[in-house]
Amino acid sequence: MVTMKNIEGGVCAAHGFYADGLAIGLKKEGARDLAFIYADTPCVNVSVFTTNKMTAAPIRHFRQKGNFEGNFVLINAKNANAMTGNVGIEDINEVLNELQKQFPDIQHPVMSSTGVIGVRLPKEKIIQGAMGIDLTRREGVAASEAIMTTDTFAKRIAFEITLNDGKTFRIGAMAKGAGMINPAMATMLCFITTDALVDKVTMQTMLDACTRTTFNAASVDGDTSTNDTVLLMANGKSGVFHPEAFKEALERIMLFLAKEMVRDGEGATKLVTYKVTGALSDTEAEITAKALSNSLLVKTALFGEDPNWGRIASTVGASGVMCDEATLSIWFDEVCVYQKGDLLFNDTLEPFAAAVMQKSAFTIHCDIGQGTGEFIAYGCDLGHEYVKINADYRT
Amino acid sequence: MVTMKNIEGGVCAAHGFYADGLAIGLKKEGARDLAFIYADTPCVNVSVFTTNKMTAAPIRHFRQKGNFEGNFVLINAKNANAMTGNVGIEDINEVLNELQKQFPDIQHPVMSSTGVIGVRLPKEKIIQGAMGIDLTRREGVAASEAIMTTDTFAKRIAFEITLNDGKTFRIGAMAKGAGMINPAMATMLCFITTDALVDKVTMQTMLDACTRTTFNAASVDGDTSTNDTVLLMANGKSGVFHPEAFKEALERIMLFLAKEMVRDGEGATKLVTYKVTGALSDTEAEITAKALSNSLLVKTALFGEDPNWGRIASTVGASGVMCDEATLSIWFDEVCVYQKGDLLFNDTLEPFAAAVMQKSAFTIHCDIGQGTGEFIAYGCDLGHEYVKINADYRT
Repeated sequence: MVTMKNIEGGVCAAHGFYADGLAIGLKKEGARDLAFIYADTPCVNVSVFTTNKMTAAPIRHFRQKGNFEGNFVLINAKNANAMTGNVGIEDINEVLNELQKQFPDIQHPVMSSTGVIGVRLPKEKIIQGAMGIDLTRREGVAASEAIMTTDTFAKRIAFEITLNDGKTFRIGAMAKGAGMINPAMATMLCFITTDALVDKVTMQTMLDACTRTTFNAASVDGDTSTNDTVLLMANGKSGVFHPEAFKEALERIMLFLAKEMVRDGEGATKLVTYKVTGALSDTEAEITAKALSNSLLVKTALFGEDPNWGRIASTVGASGVMCDEATLSIWFDEVCVYQKGDLLFNDTLEPFAAAVMQKSAFTIHCDIGQGTGEFIAYGCDLGHEYVKINADYRT
Repeated sequence: MVTMKNIEGGVCAAHGFYADGLAIGLKKEGARDLAFIYADTPCVNVSVFTTNKMTAAPIRHFRQKGNFEGNFVLINAKNANAMTGNVGIEDINEVLNELQKQFPDIQHPVMSSTGVIGVRLPKEKIIQGAMGIDLTRREGVAASEAIMTTDTFAKRIAFEITLNDGKTFRIGAMAKGAGMINPAMATMLCFITTDALVDKVTMQTMLDACTRTTFNAASVDGDTSTNDTVLLMANGKSGVFHPEAFKEALERIMLFLAKEMVRDGEGATKLVTYKVTGALSDTEAEITAKALSNSLLVKTALFGEDPNWGRIASTVGASGVMCDEATLSIWFDEVCVYQKGDLLFNDTLEPFAAAVMQKSAFTIHCDIGQGTGEFIAYGCDLGHEYVKINADYRT
């Protein structure tokens, strides 16, 4: 039997990975603001990047490198290095060249950034700060704190997987989100490390599949950042290759972090699972589930704990998929509020529906009644705190 | 020379049209909540309805009638008659049958509704209240007040157009919006009446074209209601047919009302014009302009009066159209904050950009630099008041 056990260590839980978070003066009040991940052997790297066409410099730099076996990622907060043109890439090269001079063991380093758009990278500060890096540190907690922006808590997780034959491999990760996905500050970044022995093609295929059902199914505000990045590094040190166990562990890690991001959405007080079934296709179910998780009217009704199922029905209709009020059914957790044309909702039912809305996590299930397509998306409410955070971010 | 003059009267400014707003107890505190529009001769009617697939009963009822020359519209607030199935249509027929018994001059009446979704129409109250209708009243102001929901001011306008030969025709309208378009309460409704002599096909073509650049270019929250309706009635009484003048008057009326709706968006404090030029096509410009007007991050930055041009650039990139940071330029009114890769924004420029953001109406212009496609959209900011209104609507 394959077993999967939660372990400490986050992004340096896997053998051969090192990480730390430093405070170099980018954030105020001495908070950690520069993180690194280092592997003591070359790694297979696969990644998923933002679909935003104004791709930030670190992503363009990464793509220019092509197929490489890098062992080092430098991550800074407070500056996205986005809309900075070729100068943005030159700044990265300068920072990383200086790093390689100081630390000859670093191979094919890359960079990842989150923060304000349209301001040049404070490269002198970063170069100077990075000189304080100690590649032997295994401080997964500190690293996960350094990449936070408006996140209110650090996000990390790790598993040790034991196979039938007693062999083990590890996989760990850290992420930041807050606004998912919030261009000006709260870019979604996720770094995953593993000592599993996985080939590049398999890893990329799995990462793409898991991204669809985890990070791409999660929404705080429906905006897509210039910097969004998911990076998966594998050093093969465990010598273990078990595709099913690896895929399951990867998906659990990504789903956990995606939900943590939504739960920590700017000003969010609720984590809502939108389960759409009975759509004509999985794609139509996905469209509807995401429309629900992004609707301002649904999000504000959640914040108000108002069991306003009419907004749910209307959003299903507005999402453009094949649907009909005579085949639609809606549940708040187990409470059915509308069933195939029957107006069930009344003063007797309302307190039960309202009680579900008052929970910090619950499921809104829409069965469209047109086919067998399914998708699950994750969203949060939108309250005064979101407005407060985003109305006055830069100041 | 064709001249166009603002006149009073709203929806009954045109000859042969009558309207009033009654208080029949649907709203609290004796506010007007039932309106009618009546023409003393048969009218040519054309319409544009919501694209939401959960179409409300009044729209399905209207469509069932097919091609008809009706002269009466009854409009109620507080109940959308949506998600009410066939019973919703039966309720409408019952209301309208009772009306026709009382008022034999009414031909092919239709109904329009706005309010809560998923509750049956209070038909007895409406029938009883409608008995108080006086078809000789010309109270355009009262009618425009009766259709308000969360609107903070009534919206109406009318023009008298004088042609070269001294002949005149009139066109007037009323509308409600608030949330544009807000499923649970603030459906967008617009009623336009004219005594111009226009054939049905021409009218429908013009209404469709004008809808694209006015109501469909305006957004408060990006949601599409179950009840959205634009209805244009023409009785031909002026005997005047001048397509260019008619089209211009129609577009001016619709644009004025669309902007009024955005200006009165729930909690909105600013009316922002998003001008997108240089897109690959008009369609791509439209996609980007609407993405800007719907972005939560842009809307909250507007509310915070924060000249955060990075969010504008990022939203352009996220909209999926052909674009590049090296060809994009951004202006806040006349203040250029980003030009084709140049990071113009600095401490000197910021106060000028910030001063624009403090205005109650201004233009954000993005030139994408890829082609000649153009579109103008209209949006508002999103502040605490929006959350307050929508978090707790039904109570």
